Amino acid sequence: MAPSSVIVTSRFHESITRHALRSYLSEFISTFFYVFLVVGSGMSSRKLMPDASLNPTSLVVVAIASAFALSCVLYIAWDISGGHVNPAVTFAMAVGGHVSVPTAIFYWVAQLIASVMACLVLRVIVVGMHVPTYTIAEEMTGFGASVLEGILTFVLVFTVYAARDPRRGPMSPNGILLVGFVAGAGVLAAGPFSGGSMNPACAFGSATIAGSFRNQAVYWVGPLIGATIAGLLYDNVLFSSFPTELSEGIGV
Amino acid sequence: MAPSSVIVTSRFHESITRHALRSYLSEFISTFFYVFLVVGSGMSSRKLMPDASLNPTSLVVVAIASAFALSCVLYIAWDISGGHVNPAVTFAMAVGGHVSVPTAIFYWVAQLIASVMACLVLRVIVVGMHVPTYTIAEEMTGFGASVLEGILTFVLVFTVYAARDPRRGPMSPNGILLVGFVAGAGVLAAGPFSGGSMNPACAFGSATIAGSFRNQAVYWVGPLIGATIAGLLYDNVLFSSFPTELSEGIGV
Amino acid sequence: MAPSSVIVTSRFHESITRHALRSYLSEFISTFFYVFLVVGSGMSSRKLMPDASLNPTSLVVVAIASAFALSCVLYIAWDISGGHVNPAVTFAMAVGGHVSVPTAIFYWVAQLIASVMACLVLRVIVVGMHVPTYTIAEEMTGFGASVLEGILTFVLVFTVYAARDPRRGPMSPNGILLVGFVAGAGVLAAGPFSGGSMNPACAFGSATIAGSFRNQAVYWVGPLIGATIAGLLYDNVLFSSFPTELSEGIGV
Amino acid sequence: MAPSSVIVTSRFHESITRHALRSYLSEFISTFFYVFLVVGSGMSSRKLMPDASLNPTSLVVVAIASAFALSCVLYIAWDISGGHVNPAVTFAMAVGGHVSVPTAIFYWVAQLIASVMACLVLRVIVVGMHVPTYTIAEEMTGFGASVLEGILTFVLVFTVYAARDPRRGPMSPNGILLVGFVAGAGVLAAGPFSGGSMNPACAFGSATIAGSFRNQAVYWVGPLIGATIAGLLYDNVLFSSFPTELSEGIGV
Repeated sequence: MAPSSVIVTSRFHESITRHALRSYLSEFISTFFYVFLVVGSGMSSRKLMPDASLNPTSLVVVAIASAFALSCVLYIAWDISGGHVNPAVTFAMAVGGHVSVPTAIFYWVAQLIASVMACLVLRVIVVGMHVPTYTIAEEMTGFGASVLEGILTFVLVFTVYAARDPRRGPMSPNGILLVGFVAGAGVLAAGPFSGGSMNPACAFGSATIAGSFRNQAVYWVGPLIGATIAGLLYDNVLFSSFPTELSEGIGV
Repeated sequence: MAPSSVIVTSRFHESITRHALRSYLSEFISTFFYVFLVVGSGMSSRKLMPDASLNPTSLVVVAIASAFALSCVLYIAWDISGGHVNPAVTFAMAVGGHVSVPTAIFYWVAQLIASVMACLVLRVIVVGMHVPTYTIAEEMTGFGASVLEGILTFVLVFTVYAARDPRRGPMSPNGILLVGFVAGAGVLAAGPFSGGSMNPACAFGSATIAGSFRNQAVYWVGPLIGATIAGLLYDNVLFSSFPTELSEGIGV
Repeated sequence: MAPSSVIVTSRFHESITRHALRSYLSEFISTFFYVFLVVGSGMSSRKLMPDASLNPTSLVVVAIASAFALSCVLYIAWDISGGHVNPAVTFAMAVGGHVSVPTAIFYWVAQLIASVMACLVLRVIVVGMHVPTYTIAEEMTGFGASVLEGILTFVLVFTVYAARDPRRGPMSPNGILLVGFVAGAGVLAAGPFSGGSMNPACAFGSATIAGSFRNQAVYWVGPLIGATIAGLLYDNVLFSSFPTELSEGIGV
Repeated sequence: MAPSSVIVTSRFHESITRHALRSYLSEFISTFFYVFLVVGSGMSSRKLMPDASLNPTSLVVVAIASAFALSCVLYIAWDISGGHVNPAVTFAMAVGGHVSVPTAIFYWVAQLIASVMACLVLRVIVVGMHVPTYTIAEEMTGFGASVLEGILTFVLVFTVYAARDPRRGPMSPNGILLVGFVAGAGVLAAGPFSGGSMNPACAFGSATIAGSFRNQAVYWVGPLIGATIAGLLYDNVLFSSFPTELSEGIGV
């Protein structure tokens, strides 16, 4: 019977194999481009309209960029690293036992470094503009904003779980698109209230480069809790013993 | 020969098995998020532009949110509850015999509670903003608005039936996306005239929290009739005895 | 040896079988909803902004409505009538021998009646608004507008042919979406110049209800020629003897 | 042992077979329509709003047109020419050995002629409007703009490689859509800074017709380098010896 320290060491070794290293690189690339495109589109609409935070067109710009970018980066990372691209997804999967804790930690590191790098590159090449950070509307409480981000992250992570579920039927290939789409809808719904981050890495990177960690907790606590509840609910209640007969018995 | 009361009891029992309960939970989750994202995006664009009901950009915001959200929530509910997420769909399926009446009633209850809950949560976390309700343009009659909502619900439900049809060919996986897309197009076409609800649950939830049931009948009568006609036409005329040879005989 | 009158009679009989009648109904339904959603979204944005023809947001509204609506109505008609929903597509397929001339004529009749009906219903239920017609920018010539509509119809029909081609590989299911997408892109590119109809039925219906057939020829000549060239080029040059080895030899 | 001149001749002969000629025609058609729709939508939004370069709605117009058009033209060229439609993609594939150098040269010629033709047709039929060229924001350096275009081309080409990879799982059919989507997100992120070309052919064609090659190098150097790095990284690091077990071992 192996002592637990051996198990820990073995799990750590698993986390630094060649395959695992490729996974971290994959998470790095995908998170880098997701943050680059989302934060870049925010800067882009701010450049065109300096009071952009007051205009619904900017909301459309960032929402479409988020939707399109997320679908794409999930696609390129899907078969290598599992396509997390979001510390909240990784957290939920670690809690649910789908990835080991050391792997989750390496994923987080890759995601956070990628996000900081993306914002840094934007800051350097777009001379004279600040990287925008996620902010909360004046009338919102920090708790309300956290609940809002948590609810949106719930549906995002629930969709990720559905997209990875091999028991899904012929609609399965759309999973990747729909995770992106629901992120876009989330930005449209939450944009002027809490920003619609749904991704702690995104909020962390822009805050690091902008040098302002105000309300940072909002973008971590809500999403991590929302993601974990979504994962546990999916695994243990809705799809615990999913019988294929059911789907044929109900509906057309 | 079983007396009808036995059949009724047995059908009722079927409606409270573990699988059935999971279906109601699934309808609850999907309807909650659909209403949350659609009504939230309406509040979001209203926040950015207080006279938002007069601006086409708000229309784009709500239409994209509706399309993206509906596709996603159908996807996560598709294999569990059949992905109704709409009392009009459930009504048409009950009339067409695809779901039993007790099941349909439980679906309605789940959908309506979910919608009220979604609007309530939005009302609570977004302090100081009212939940917007669906309204009819001044020059429209209630009858005209009901016909408009009915026509749009017709094409929505027709697409749902097509998406669930196992006889569809290789284009089948797109069904879920297209139900969302046609909902988005419906919002774009009907937005300033009747709101483009196409979903009685959506109209009911926002009216309940806003405390105004003015014109509520418009958002029930039209959609329920439109959905039922779509379902009956699909089952009995267009696809009653669909021969696979036909699709090869016409077209490229 | 059958005299040609017998062949004609037999072809005519083929055109009125039960399956054929279902095809016409399918074309009617799909064209009705396509025109309803596209023209409706034009009225919708005009309602919100009376000088809508001068605003790029209206362009986005109509373009997204066109894209989403076309994908959806093609999907519901695809396996029944072949999903033409456009007299230009039917014309090209008749020239290319994919549908018989009597069938093509019945398709045209169904499409044109559907378009007129859709505009009539919009005119009746939206009290006090005129149905917008397709117009040509002042500085454009009729010939230039016709060429523009023809070029856009070319790529639309070429995509329809690709989507129906059974030799396409795993990307095939996206065909329906992409026909809608390219229609949306066409509206974005041609909107303020010629309207971006790409569908004679759409232009005919709105002109009939508005009572103005000015420049109607532009929306027929260009699209019919563009569609025919696209069909002939696809059948005879690009995919005449498509060898599957080729696709593996080039590219990744 | 064949002298190298024989190999060159044989490779050249391969480049002018009937299949190869069809590939060039396919690249020509797809590039023509991509440039036509993207540059056309830029002219369209400029027509509606003469100071369009200052408005985020124009950004949405061009981004959606780019996304929808690129997905569509890749689809129609995918099985014939491999769906490059972009000199940067062709360059990366030539460097990676996926296409021979003579073929790559013919592809470039087809792509560049197509782009010039598309801009010429637009210039002729839209009387009195200039073809817009890609420009760099005042505060940006040429180097910064080139890096920005290179980064966006990297993710575009990486997605193209992923979409062509036969080892991809059930999500594979979405590849074509996602290449278009990421191009749209790129326009949203880079529009007001460097234009978001990500395609040297697009920049070359509009510059040729507008008669201004200012900053043209920016739209060649960055994309060619970004595309090449993406291709090499994909082939040699991330997917060099992709084991199918991995994708099952990580994630849900």
